[in-house]
Amino acid sequence: MTGYTIAVVGATGAVGTKMIQMLEQATFPIKSVKLLASKRSAGKKILFKGKEAEIQETTAESFENVDIALFSAGGSISKQFAPEAVKRGAVVIDNTSAYRMDSEVPLVVPEVNEEAVRSHKGIIANPNCSTIQMMVALEPIRKQYGLDRIIVSTYQAVSGAGISAVKEMKEQAQKMLNEEPYEATILPSGGDKKHFPIAFNALPQIDLFTEDGYTFEELKMINETKKIMSDDKIKVSATCVRIPVVSGHSESVYIEVKEDGASVSALQDILRNAPGVVLQDDPSNQIYPTALAAAGKKETFVGRIRKDRDEDKGFHMWIVSDNLLKGAAWNSVQIAESLHKLGLIKVSN
Amino acid sequence: MTGYTIAVVGATGAVGTKMIQMLEQATFPIKSVKLLASKRSAGKKILFKGKEAEIQETTAESFENVDIALFSAGGSISKQFAPEAVKRGAVVIDNTSAYRMDSEVPLVVPEVNEEAVRSHKGIIANPNCSTIQMMVALEPIRKQYGLDRIIVSTYQAVSGAGISAVKEMKEQAQKMLNEEPYEATILPSGGDKKHFPIAFNALPQIDLFTEDGYTFEELKMINETKKIMSDDKIKVSATCVRIPVVSGHSESVYIEVKEDGASVSALQDILRNAPGVVLQDDPSNQIYPTALAAAGKKETFVGRIRKDRDEDKGFHMWIVSDNLLKGAAWNSVQIAESLHKLGLIKVSN
Repeated sequence: MTGYTIAVVGATGAVGTKMIQMLEQATFPIKSVKLLASKRSAGKKILFKGKEAEIQETTAESFENVDIALFSAGGSISKQFAPEAVKRGAVVIDNTSAYRMDSEVPLVVPEVNEEAVRSHKGIIANPNCSTIQMMVALEPIRKQYGLDRIIVSTYQAVSGAGISAVKEMKEQAQKMLNEEPYEATILPSGGDKKHFPIAFNALPQIDLFTEDGYTFEELKMINETKKIMSDDKIKVSATCVRIPVVSGHSESVYIEVKEDGASVSALQDILRNAPGVVLQDDPSNQIYPTALAAAGKKETFVGRIRKDRDEDKGFHMWIVSDNLLKGAAWNSVQIAESLHKLGLIKVSN
Repeated sequence: MTGYTIAVVGATGAVGTKMIQMLEQATFPIKSVKLLASKRSAGKKILFKGKEAEIQETTAESFENVDIALFSAGGSISKQFAPEAVKRGAVVIDNTSAYRMDSEVPLVVPEVNEEAVRSHKGIIANPNCSTIQMMVALEPIRKQYGLDRIIVSTYQAVSGAGISAVKEMKEQAQKMLNEEPYEATILPSGGDKKHFPIAFNALPQIDLFTEDGYTFEELKMINETKKIMSDDKIKVSATCVRIPVVSGHSESVYIEVKEDGASVSALQDILRNAPGVVLQDDPSNQIYPTALAAAGKKETFVGRIRKDRDEDKGFHMWIVSDNLLKGAAWNSVQIAESLHKLGLIKVSN
């Protein structure tokens, strides 16, 4: 049997688990998967296409004979092992922030800049979840009318912070419903000093703060947008907020286009035909995207498109997608599909 | 004993209950309270300042000898009974949308436009909850630097839709935690055709849709802002979203000021000294407002003030307040306090 040998690093995590599911649905040939995680998880068994696969501890040697390595085990693991994988001939698709802004590393959303994969030097970065879905929705509009400006406020799901954060949210919610005392030990950021409850709350902090008052999550949206759209001049502002949703990031997005002539119906037409987008925009029938309805789906859902009441080139919209799928696992597997489709990947043996 | 006779219409509702609590804390003299509701609730007993008061059915005659009537029982009840109350000499403070945009009716946030109460012709309107907290935070900035533009995305609590909506959210949450089937019968709007779950979700619809794709809630924020700030030219855009929070509306607000010279520290200084505002803005110590922390408090909390990275006069901030208190009951009682303080109200007997 020929096909690729694919490693998943972080195979027991929220994204890694979904990567395995998405690989089961991939259209390129897979000879075998190597499920890698920390020593703690080694020996656990996970089903892949109905067969048991055993989790192995990630070591440099794990990447021998691997063709594609999908990483989603945190930035420090990527920094440590991605070069080892590349050294052994694998192409790394990295879902952490470790290499995203590296000028040598393409940052890819296949619907937007698939051709960028051609320039890879071993590592391709998967953008931040909240950036990806915004790019899928806005790039088709940008192609037609140009984009001068984006202001986004996010409503981000807890699964973006990992399985343990979801577990804690559910425990908090249960205790609040019981009117019992609850505790918070993870969010807004495991690496920060203070922790606040997310159940029945909204936390205006995702990741750590930078010195100018923006969070790293907000800067990711700003900087990654400019890199993916290859446009340093585009004005981007972001406010990133965590809300008590399991999976499915929602975004309230304001844009100003450059060209004249855009209208709500023109934008709807563009998005109706855009790759990876499902237009759900019929307010009179209460049709619009929601996180619960988008969870488990691979597409990006767009609705509530309306014209700003003061700015002729200004439009508002509501963009929703499953942060673990298009925001992470599915986009990574799509990058692998692009590599395959463009003939950029060799089977190692 | 001298003092005002005060009627609360909708005394058993989410806001009415809080109005009674806020009246207990009011500084003006109260001779008696009349707790009014629908026939269904008549006979129920509620404590006011430790004494039992019986709920009575609302009739035109209920307003005989009433000095101040606080209404929060829906627009149609206000339309029906507010004129009856005025006819009998009461000043009506109406917390529904029935009269807000009536040019004869002042729309008042005491920290912003207290003097407007002087022009009342019997009815004073209490603005929409999401508008009030934004006005409290932005008016002090507008006074200093002018305001050209506001773009707001809201994260609104379920109690704004009433006690039954909160009950349904909690039931949905419990069933989702148990992985049992759940149903939705109230939100996004009791008056609309379809209903969606709010637990572990975000609904980009509050109130019904208008023909141009905005919801009435969004138009309330837009139109009420212009009226309260007495500025038809100010550009206002709103996206109103319900999230699974019990009480406490959060808002991601972008503003562009008119004058030069504004800075984050200048805005912080203004808000540190602004009436009704508590500045909670120290990202390096993770100090910012959250809905859970603001619930039960009368102030408006502001944090995450930061400069836009592209627009020199653009700033972002996060504004949070208890939608039932400053957003409704407390603002109404404050209006009554303003009437008393300005000597605009006569004791009827």
